[in-house]
Amino acid sequence: MKVLILGMDGYIGWNLSLYLMKKGYDVFGADNLCRRMQVSEVGSKSLTPILPIAQRVKLAEDCFGGKLFFRKGDIHNSKFVYELFKDIRPDTIIHLAQMPSAPYSMIDLEHANKTIYQNTIGCNNVLWGMRDIVPEAHLIKMGTMGEYGTPNIDIPEGFFEIEYRGRKDKLPFPKQAGSIYHWTKVFDSQLAMFASKIWGIKATDMNQGIVYGVSTDENMVEQGLISRFDYDGVFGTILNRFVVQSIIGMPLSVFGKGGQIRGFINIKDVLQCIGLYIKNPPKDENYCVFNQLAEVGFTMTELAEKIVQLGLEKGYKASIRKIDNPRVESEEHYYNPDHKKLLDLGFKPANFDKEIARMFDDLSPYKDLINKEVIEARVKWNHKR
Amino acid sequence: MKVLILGMDGYIGWNLSLYLMKKGYDVFGADNLCRRMQVSEVGSKSLTPILPIAQRVKLAEDCFGGKLFFRKGDIHNSKFVYELFKDIRPDTIIHLAQMPSAPYSMIDLEHANKTIYQNTIGCNNVLWGMRDIVPEAHLIKMGTMGEYGTPNIDIPEGFFEIEYRGRKDKLPFPKQAGSIYHWTKVFDSQLAMFASKIWGIKATDMNQGIVYGVSTDENMVEQGLISRFDYDGVFGTILNRFVVQSIIGMPLSVFGKGGQIRGFINIKDVLQCIGLYIKNPPKDENYCVFNQLAEVGFTMTELAEKIVQLGLEKGYKASIRKIDNPRVESEEHYYNPDHKKLLDLGFKPANFDKEIARMFDDLSPYKDLINKEVIEARVKWNHKR
Repeated sequence: MKVLILGMDGYIGWNLSLYLMKKGYDVFGADNLCRRMQVSEVGSKSLTPILPIAQRVKLAEDCFGGKLFFRKGDIHNSKFVYELFKDIRPDTIIHLAQMPSAPYSMIDLEHANKTIYQNTIGCNNVLWGMRDIVPEAHLIKMGTMGEYGTPNIDIPEGFFEIEYRGRKDKLPFPKQAGSIYHWTKVFDSQLAMFASKIWGIKATDMNQGIVYGVSTDENMVEQGLISRFDYDGVFGTILNRFVVQSIIGMPLSVFGKGGQIRGFINIKDVLQCIGLYIKNPPKDENYCVFNQLAEVGFTMTELAEKIVQLGLEKGYKASIRKIDNPRVESEEHYYNPDHKKLLDLGFKPANFDKEIARMFDDLSPYKDLINKEVIEARVKWNHKR
Repeated sequence: MKVLILGMDGYIGWNLSLYLMKKGYDVFGADNLCRRMQVSEVGSKSLTPILPIAQRVKLAEDCFGGKLFFRKGDIHNSKFVYELFKDIRPDTIIHLAQMPSAPYSMIDLEHANKTIYQNTIGCNNVLWGMRDIVPEAHLIKMGTMGEYGTPNIDIPEGFFEIEYRGRKDKLPFPKQAGSIYHWTKVFDSQLAMFASKIWGIKATDMNQGIVYGVSTDENMVEQGLISRFDYDGVFGTILNRFVVQSIIGMPLSVFGKGGQIRGFINIKDVLQCIGLYIKNPPKDENYCVFNQLAEVGFTMTELAEKIVQLGLEKGYKASIRKIDNPRVESEEHYYNPDHKKLLDLGFKPANFDKEIARMFDDLSPYKDLINKEVIEARVKWNHKR
């Protein structure tokens, strides 16, 4: 089974490559390596020291045996996509090659346009490339729970049956994204749904919660196999940032009232989920949406409290500080997303507290590399004109 | 009151310029003139002979008095947008500068990407430009009824209150667009809604039905004032194409079963609606959606029959022919869009049959210019790989 990972050099992409190599898949990857540059553009770098691409590929091959194919290139470039698909003829394509940061998309107009271009054109090239070269392949596309926003009703997995004025229909669940980045992801999901409908492309859409974690079973085999770990205010996600703040004794920054609720998933669980999708392509319908999360139901303040507590047990002392919310979002709201379909596939989530506790151990060797200056979220959604 | 029309050279844009000049507004316009080239790229041209931009602007000034400002440029170019807004400081911005054709977006990957780029980046530049230069201005943005698709429930105007599993919320109505072009319009609507929310931009979104018609009160004042009229299979819309087919005795091409239902609106009514929006910017909420249509409730077959009948009364004889549907769409479905908000604003729709009948008279002088070869819809949604 040939699996092609678009965005192989990223946080998830690299860990996934190792995971699938170890499972015996023929793993192929592509990346334009822009993430390394974008994080450096915002003044930071991966806290975990990552090897240059050629070296990490070689090391992975040495550690897990077999070949790890890598090609540098950009999925905005349709010619690159078409040649890649022609040369590899993958059975499964895992599309992780998106610009993944909400704050990055809100820095200014230039960054907003870059995000729109990278994500919409990239996804469109992948879909047309599949249609023209590998129409039988299975697309597994990275979406986000952020596409839904925080409606005052339950969030189903992609579609819901509703009654309205006495008539019924099954419709896509309305989207209320919270940043330009999130709206590009909505567009990509809609495009994948449309391509499935008109061209019969099989697509699994992952509406993923916020990922956290450092180590996986594979990236701990050798030090150089570690994946990137971003903790800056632009590319670092909230739980990862909280742990880093906790380690250096910096107050954990909670946005506004701190009543926001989100779904979370450990990096190892993400790999497990993608492994399940590879084995279970859509059957009854071509386009299948999963809400990909393991933990939900606590506020950001409660999460910060939990992390302070888990840090204390490891000897790290930190407090919590509420800061002005740089985003425009509800700070107190209902939140109840379904996430049963993955469990039905056999997904076994990791233990939340244990995984967070483990992050302290995973990151302690890099404590002195933490740059306090880059952690705070500085990009404001409605900054002064 | 300064009104800026983006897309001034188009079918609606040009007619709107004349309409607003006559009403005494200070009218400013911009256009990259790409529509002329795109129609020529697909082998056709406007059936009504249109003047070069400089001449039509001069003629409009001569006929209606006052100044008609025009600047050539591209709204994908953020610098152009910012300078335009700085120089004009418009009170109202009417955004019609989109690539408007579903078939064009489905020709191939290159055209799909061009459509995505033109529409998403263009709209984003307009929104950021408003935020930075004219935050108090009112945006009137062209959307389409096609964003909704054909759900099996009533279509409200933008938002609906629903109950789901015992809880209630008011949410954006789910979108089920039918082409890549339509999905770009969904993106633009979502972006406008988002910009209204985070930056307080006042925006009126027109979910417009299919426009038809040739003459307006203003474009008949002098022959050279006529606006463009496309009847080719890519840029011509269905009712306009039916009338042209009827005039040359070519069978009216109905797609598939012909049970499709859509909303329609006369070109004069479009101008009337936009005039109403200019006078009635959003009040209670920053982002306001109108379903902009006047006629609905008949199938495409019934529409074809009506046009054949109205043609007969004018001495034109034509039949109806069902052709393989080039699109992927429901050919028999429920369709009941709300369209009451415009009536509440005072909208008085034209008489449908009379307006169609008038088209035969409007177009008869150009009968010999009709190129039969370009009329049929040839772009297939799922053409062979």
